[in-house]
Amino acid sequence: MSKERLYLFDTTLRDGAQTTGVDFSLEDKRRLMRVLDDLGIDYIEGGFPGANATDTELFSSRPNLKSARFTAFGMTKRSGRSVSNDPGLQAVLQSSADSICLVAKSSDYQVRVALGITNEENLETIRQSVGAVVETQREAMIDCEHFFDGYKSNRDYALAVAKTAYDAGARWVVLCDTNGGTLPHEIERIVADVAKHVPGANLGIHTHNDTDNAVANTLMAIRAGCRQIQGALNGLGERCGNANLTSIIPTLLLKSEFADAFTTGVTPDKLRTLTHASRVLDEVLNEAPNRHAPYVGESAFATKAGIHASALMKAPETYEHVPPESVGNERRILVSKQGGRSSLTSALERLGLPSDKDDARVQALLDEVKVREDQGYSYEAAEASFELLARRALATVPRYFSVDNFRVTVERREERSRAMNGNGTVSHAVVTVSIAGDDAPLVSVGEGNGPVNALDKALRSDLGRYQKHIENVELVDYKVRILTQTHEGGTDAVTRVLVESHDATTGERWTTVGVSPNIIDASFEALLDSINYKLLKDEAQVG
Amino acid sequence: MSKERLYLFDTTLRDGAQTTGVDFSLEDKRRLMRVLDDLGIDYIEGGFPGANATDTELFSSRPNLKSARFTAFGMTKRSGRSVSNDPGLQAVLQSSADSICLVAKSSDYQVRVALGITNEENLETIRQSVGAVVETQREAMIDCEHFFDGYKSNRDYALAVAKTAYDAGARWVVLCDTNGGTLPHEIERIVADVAKHVPGANLGIHTHNDTDNAVANTLMAIRAGCRQIQGALNGLGERCGNANLTSIIPTLLLKSEFADAFTTGVTPDKLRTLTHASRVLDEVLNEAPNRHAPYVGESAFATKAGIHASALMKAPETYEHVPPESVGNERRILVSKQGGRSSLTSALERLGLPSDKDDARVQALLDEVKVREDQGYSYEAAEASFELLARRALATVPRYFSVDNFRVTVERREERSRAMNGNGTVSHAVVTVSIAGDDAPLVSVGEGNGPVNALDKALRSDLGRYQKHIENVELVDYKVRILTQTHEGGTDAVTRVLVESHDATTGERWTTVGVSPNIIDASFEALLDSINYKLLKDEAQVG
Repeated sequence: MSKERLYLFDTTLRDGAQTTGVDFSLEDKRRLMRVLDDLGIDYIEGGFPGANATDTELFSSRPNLKSARFTAFGMTKRSGRSVSNDPGLQAVLQSSADSICLVAKSSDYQVRVALGITNEENLETIRQSVGAVVETQREAMIDCEHFFDGYKSNRDYALAVAKTAYDAGARWVVLCDTNGGTLPHEIERIVADVAKHVPGANLGIHTHNDTDNAVANTLMAIRAGCRQIQGALNGLGERCGNANLTSIIPTLLLKSEFADAFTTGVTPDKLRTLTHASRVLDEVLNEAPNRHAPYVGESAFATKAGIHASALMKAPETYEHVPPESVGNERRILVSKQGGRSSLTSALERLGLPSDKDDARVQALLDEVKVREDQGYSYEAAEASFELLARRALATVPRYFSVDNFRVTVERREERSRAMNGNGTVSHAVVTVSIAGDDAPLVSVGEGNGPVNALDKALRSDLGRYQKHIENVELVDYKVRILTQTHEGGTDAVTRVLVESHDATTGERWTTVGVSPNIIDASFEALLDSINYKLLKDEAQVG
Repeated sequence: MSKERLYLFDTTLRDGAQTTGVDFSLEDKRRLMRVLDDLGIDYIEGGFPGANATDTELFSSRPNLKSARFTAFGMTKRSGRSVSNDPGLQAVLQSSADSICLVAKSSDYQVRVALGITNEENLETIRQSVGAVVETQREAMIDCEHFFDGYKSNRDYALAVAKTAYDAGARWVVLCDTNGGTLPHEIERIVADVAKHVPGANLGIHTHNDTDNAVANTLMAIRAGCRQIQGALNGLGERCGNANLTSIIPTLLLKSEFADAFTTGVTPDKLRTLTHASRVLDEVLNEAPNRHAPYVGESAFATKAGIHASALMKAPETYEHVPPESVGNERRILVSKQGGRSSLTSALERLGLPSDKDDARVQALLDEVKVREDQGYSYEAAEASFELLARRALATVPRYFSVDNFRVTVERREERSRAMNGNGTVSHAVVTVSIAGDDAPLVSVGEGNGPVNALDKALRSDLGRYQKHIENVELVDYKVRILTQTHEGGTDAVTRVLVESHDATTGERWTTVGVSPNIIDASFEALLDSINYKLLKDEAQVG
């Protein structure tokens, strides 16, 4: 039996950006697009060109994607305007997107209350908007907003909207449960009915998690005919989130009901990067990963010691419905923060370093990583720090320089601060550095907008013979997290700092990590790793 | 049509206690039992008497419950021992429980591999164990472990287990999806088949969230016949958690498919305590509530999109599938760039402040929020800071105290640091505060793990007459984000700090924001807002 193709549509960067507190930068979006493309997602909805500066810039040029289609979100044209006279639609049409997804009302109540136009006028805007996209030789999709509520109150009109979009040439007609209130058995029944009017091969499903059923609603829609699945990584999204692609994708690949009937762009190999993809998103959002997340959570395959644990050793399937390795996760028997051993050894392979677990040095490194993760380090995002750690254990990293001491002061005087419009706080740093092979230590001073900036400036102001290597390196992102796994209290807890550096000459970016009870110490550690990584990559000459 | 009764069985304190990191004390369990009883839960599974000291103590006397049945968990007797000779089963039988739930294997594979006995021996232990419970005049229940996997591999044996328990007198035969791997449509099909052999009125369902379908699986089981629903508040539980009762209960009461067919012990009145019940559990666990939780999350009825917000005001059902008040939650229109003016004015309304856009003071506040958002402030998460800002503009906030100046130093000396195992960095802060109505300013010193901790300690060490208000306030979360990712360098950019505070006495949590090029300044601003907000809420007396 030949399998049908399911198409995965990720809206993390568009509908997911509606999440309370989420605010993606241009660089965040570009980084996540690479992750989604690597995972094998078919459509990446990057944002809404014309709606804000970040999205307009993102869509000003087509990113280099391996297989994903770069998709823009927009609105159908306004009634009473021509396509060419609608600046919102024009911004989308003139973007560099491969595919364009336009939202349209599909409930007659919404058409009347929110748009204040007639049902037929609404169908006409859909016809013309889809036509305008098709004319530019791109794939058109229509998001049918409030589709399920619309269907329940006026089935004929909801179907007319879907059919109009399809007849006008839309590649995909997406059925949206906009307020998230529809239950699984209703989704199944309604989609089955819609599929009699628009072919399932052209139907998409877009659900929200307001009743905790977004994943089930999506699976039911697939069973009833939908072949495009919209959702967000980690279930990001407004209110309770969009359908969680991180939960849906493994079910499609690992559960026979779906795996025997369908193929997706995510191969079993790529599925093993899923846990990593989920963690990268958390890092970008500066959020602690959800330990209990299905498939990818740190506790998803964890068992407290006891009867379950011994049964697990005898027969893993007793408490593991799928093998944890299949999604890049791992079994955890004791309550611990173990890093993924298999992912670590494969990282070593990628660096061309010894990775045989029987090698005592590899074993020692794995143990050290475990100890450091217990302390709060995280190497999921800080690959440069991991590389330094690994090369120090398994190869050699020169000791380019050492820092003998530093002192940072931050001072504010109210009168001065008022006189200077609130900017009267002054930060200074003094750093004493010994360069390998030099006699006298270098003492440098930096003044900055804050203590870390002052420290960074002092450190970079004079690194002697290495100065040329770091001249064009800049700190482009700086993230701080307080880790409160212990119950000893917030500010007493450990601080993790992630620093992203950028070399303006080569365009290279790398991320380093520092952990300490002291934010300045943690920042300094990450700054030092950043410089050492750069010197290592440049093969800087010592002494 | 007369409605059927559904029975809610809460296992937060038993299966929920298997959650990684969860360890309930006796007092925790007693407090949560009162909350569950108030909510209208039918069965509260308190724990496993005999298995540990806490549970044995809990079951030594019957707590004073209004309507819930106090339920003990245990294991069926061992094969080859008599009931009276099995100390595990005796501990359960001799407890003060109203109802007893015993776990039994229902998969022939498990019987062979885990128990090493014959299928018939297993049925006999079930018969005798149920009989022993019934003999004590108490309700007997059997948790059929691995029921769905067992059914798939040997349907006849799984059915024989269920039927044996029922025939022996079990009030409830509970079908458990122990490893959480079964999908909704499978649950529906299998339960419908079981209900032909054991009456649905005697069937329970117990699911886990390993595929993100625990809630849907439960709903499907009810549709197919089960009348007892097992789950945990907030979806607590091993791995990815048990079925989330906090999501299931509102669906049963608010969605017509279920509300028209069934009644539960939770009345519409009691349903309004659901958000509170969920938060109490988080308090007991010392966990930050999940903002995105269906029905009860802080963001469950939040919207930040401008167009959504205006549609929401016109027709709430557009983005609200149920009224937020029905579960004791509330609508939030987030104060954000995308939210526009209507979200701001509705936030003012909620605070009982003037919100008429024609009012010049309201206009001035709206302008100020816009300017501040451009500077990097975000009031979406920092509602306490927004409230201070709004009350300062539209009402009055006393000037409790002012900070004349502060000075923070962070110093590391390599030798000392090495000697102290890397913890040799020392942070000090000196703060000068003038209290309204006092003559001499107060000078305080703090030493901390980092500069913000030192500053926090100095500030809180002596606030004169206000000291009593802040004594039990602690900083529980601290987040930092660098905002302008221009290529002029990260550390030169603006820093946004979010501080979450917690009052250990009242349990209240609030979040404040600070923005500055200097991380210390930004942190200080958020700390000051936190204290001022607390003084405002306490109506602290000035001067």
